Amino acid sequence: MTDVIELPAIQPETCCTSMTSAPITPEEAAATASLFKALGDPTRVLLVSIVAAAEGREACVCDLTEPTGLSQPTVSHHLKILMDAGFLSRTRRGSWAYYALVPGSLERLAAALGE
Amino acid sequence: MTDVIELPAIQPETCCTSMTSAPITPEEAAATASLFKALGDPTRVLLVSIVAAAEGREACVCDLTEPTGLSQPTVSHHLKILMDAGFLSRTRRGSWAYYALVPGSLERLAAALGE
Repeated sequence: MTDVIELPAIQPETCCTSMTSAPITPEEAAATASLFKALGDPTRVLLVSIVAAAEGREACVCDLTEPTGLSQPTVSHHLKILMDAGFLSRTRRGSWAYYALVPGSLERLAAALGE
Repeated sequence: MTDVIELPAIQPETCCTSMTSAPITPEEAAATASLFKALGDPTRVLLVSIVAAAEGREACVCDLTEPTGLSQPTVSHHLKILMDAGFLSRTRRGSWAYYALVPGSLERLAAALGE
């Protein structure tokens, strides 16, 4: 069985400068805002929360559809946005995809909100 | 001279439960997502940053238009969204409005991203 790990499209290492210690540049504001926007949806907050609270901070896609009450294509659309923003990574094992929280991704965004 | 202080429409005390320590409820996800959405725009991140980094964490509206490169009505629209989300409060002094960072509002959202 071969694991195929898909990494996030955006590497969040480039983000985030603190918003509060000094005025940030327009470029930094755009990078930071794109991450906030990815979390600016109730379904996506719920999906991140389910994955982050799961054992090993990883959840099968088969366990992510029911809690949202949405169709699988809609959930996949939201999962793709979270991957593109660098919050989740995806691994295929057998016939299922597993989504994991990218370590440090939430903490880096939290740093933008602090000193 | 009378100060008129306009408080945020949403009191952020109701937010935010940690997203990562346990799966949050759909209601908590909606409340948290609405705050992320308010910051999910480059202009609004820039405005919060300018206010947060200003002396006394307060800035005159007259100093907020030029850095964004946008019209005053557009900036006012973004400032209203930030007030409604509980990040900024507004005080009128004489002919100018002053926007201040609501103490603790960014830290409360950061808490949602942590343990």
